[in-house]
Amino acid sequence: MIRLKNFNNINNIRSFCTQSINKPLVNLKTSIEEINFDEKRKVTVFSGMQPTSAALHLGNYLGAMDNWLKIQDLIAKHNEVSPGHKLIFSIVDLHSLTATKTLSPKELHSNTLSVAINYLASGIDPQKVILFNQSMVAAHSELTWIFNCIASFSKLSTMVQFKEKSKSNSQSISNGLLSYPVLMAADILLYRATHVPVGDDQTQHIEFTREIVNSFHHTYKKKYFPLPTIISSETSKRIMSLQDGRVKMSKSDPSDLSRISLTDTDEMIQMKIKKSKTDSIIGISYDIQNRPDISNLLSIASVTSGVSIADLEKEFKDKQNSHFKDFVSQSIISKVKPIREKINYYQANEKIVRDILLEGSDKANQIAINNLKQIKDIIGLYH
Amino acid sequence: MIRLKNFNNINNIRSFCTQSINKPLVNLKTSIEEINFDEKRKVTVFSGMQPTSAALHLGNYLGAMDNWLKIQDLIAKHNEVSPGHKLIFSIVDLHSLTATKTLSPKELHSNTLSVAINYLASGIDPQKVILFNQSMVAAHSELTWIFNCIASFSKLSTMVQFKEKSKSNSQSISNGLLSYPVLMAADILLYRATHVPVGDDQTQHIEFTREIVNSFHHTYKKKYFPLPTIISSETSKRIMSLQDGRVKMSKSDPSDLSRISLTDTDEMIQMKIKKSKTDSIIGISYDIQNRPDISNLLSIASVTSGVSIADLEKEFKDKQNSHFKDFVSQSIISKVKPIREKINYYQANEKIVRDILLEGSDKANQIAINNLKQIKDIIGLYH
Repeated sequence: MIRLKNFNNINNIRSFCTQSINKPLVNLKTSIEEINFDEKRKVTVFSGMQPTSAALHLGNYLGAMDNWLKIQDLIAKHNEVSPGHKLIFSIVDLHSLTATKTLSPKELHSNTLSVAINYLASGIDPQKVILFNQSMVAAHSELTWIFNCIASFSKLSTMVQFKEKSKSNSQSISNGLLSYPVLMAADILLYRATHVPVGDDQTQHIEFTREIVNSFHHTYKKKYFPLPTIISSETSKRIMSLQDGRVKMSKSDPSDLSRISLTDTDEMIQMKIKKSKTDSIIGISYDIQNRPDISNLLSIASVTSGVSIADLEKEFKDKQNSHFKDFVSQSIISKVKPIREKINYYQANEKIVRDILLEGSDKANQIAINNLKQIKDIIGLYH
Repeated sequence: MIRLKNFNNINNIRSFCTQSINKPLVNLKTSIEEINFDEKRKVTVFSGMQPTSAALHLGNYLGAMDNWLKIQDLIAKHNEVSPGHKLIFSIVDLHSLTATKTLSPKELHSNTLSVAINYLASGIDPQKVILFNQSMVAAHSELTWIFNCIASFSKLSTMVQFKEKSKSNSQSISNGLLSYPVLMAADILLYRATHVPVGDDQTQHIEFTREIVNSFHHTYKKKYFPLPTIISSETSKRIMSLQDGRVKMSKSDPSDLSRISLTDTDEMIQMKIKKSKTDSIIGISYDIQNRPDISNLLSIASVTSGVSIADLEKEFKDKQNSHFKDFVSQSIISKVKPIREKINYYQANEKIVRDILLEGSDKANQIAINNLKQIKDIIGLYH
């Protein structure tokens, strides 16, 4: 859910109209810049990330995290003027149980901590964000059951992700995979979130969440939830594999040489850049079509050093690859080293992370329990 | 889930073998008399009833309730010798959300209270039973999500009740209806219940619950849950409609004259028995095939008065229907009146019922939260 992807269709990125619930003029998508804070209803942003992988890589950091930090700053800035806007960041461990490959208890436990550590080290600030893992807030599951009873079975069974994932092995498909969008709707609506930063591949899930809103209001004759809006973002910093400049840097790539992990030592970074793929053309130039590998290194160097690609091209035009690669390594190290040191710090002080997650789940529970009470009253559940 | 039906197949009613988990020798069914208390593992009985209808009728009382009171006494008796056996009785409001016809918030709320009141008035003793409504124990929903992720989608979509209920209107079927057996498995296994008193129509659901047990143990390589056993019962007291002795007394019968409600006044009972269907044959005799209506009245009179059917036949052999009906009315009134008075008492003292449900949910939560913690540890969920 954290993946913030490029939205090329400019028609989708319209200004955010009005926050009043259930009006069709609440757009499905908005850009970060165009989030409208001039509303009576406060902005609540919800996002989740799965604890499927232990460490973030440079692609995650320069892509999604960068947008996340932008949203965090924006909310903090607006809260200074008029408090009450919220940013909720959940490690969605319950979603990860739907994966075909079951994580071992040890992996799931340590991945959850590790995701928290990676995000904290990257700049997620528990003073500004409610950070917690999903399974510590029971109301996520409780609202999921309530939504199950208004969610259309036939709709769920035709959702794109379910169909794709169930194609390969239909016999072993769990009900969790089918119900995934219901849990996601509950995640968002439990906090009455107005905005969700998600990628293109999640658009159908947000549309489904809006259908749940309408269905709930229709069934119980009471308007309660906002229609959530996607925060879409232009990802100019699309970071590619170090071994193939035409595919994205990914945690699922079998080669560890393809990516820089935020936990890599300086030596590992130097080694990976030294071994990174280039081409036989002399000199350094930016040409995504014909020189994808060199272009990727130029992008990484530019983003991590702050020097424009044009200036880098000028400086390294006639230099050897090895000179350029030294610069790329140093530039990456300057970004990654402080994060790695923070990761090491948190790993050595797990208690601090534990306290942050506990405090986060306390804050989340406070909102969730209160909202769930109101939802139970609307339905008539005795409590 | 409360419906206790007749199990004609004597082969299904075998003695309860051993409580050790996951052994195939744990039989699927047992009779009340053959529940084995000589085990290291304590007996935990779980049962639920939906708050779909406000008042119980005589058929419920003389059928299911009678068995329930038997189980209650049995557990209490064994607890005197060796404490720790449990009886858990849940008003399953979350299940009722899957009904095609949505209850209004007011109906759901008052039905929940009303079911509690009816059962308390009928003899359910909160000193001996943990009585609460399901939605007040969040862990039911939490465990449902966990089980969703090991429950086979294809299996659920071929369950008899789902297929039957979805036949009529497949477009409007909710995911809750598909997931119903998963919630039921969570209800039972949350308390590691060893026994469930359910009717024939629920056998597939208990088999499914056992599959969840096996699947959980297989997935997480740890045995934790018992294989629950059905407590089946012979229902000699099959109470039929007062308007048609060939069909069961039922809350869904459109005619109120077809049933005696536990809240009916003495006058209403007299009126309903007076208007009850008989036949044109002179005298009173028991003959289910040819005289279903008179036979039903004889059954009711026998159960409520304690006089055998044979003795009643002798006494009323040559009497007029009206004489016999007077006896039937008086006999029913002698049973119903004290219950009705207790119902009236609880209705006038709702706070007492509220406190019982709160105390019940506290006790249930204590067990549920503890067990869920252990389950989370097995899975690796951070908490």
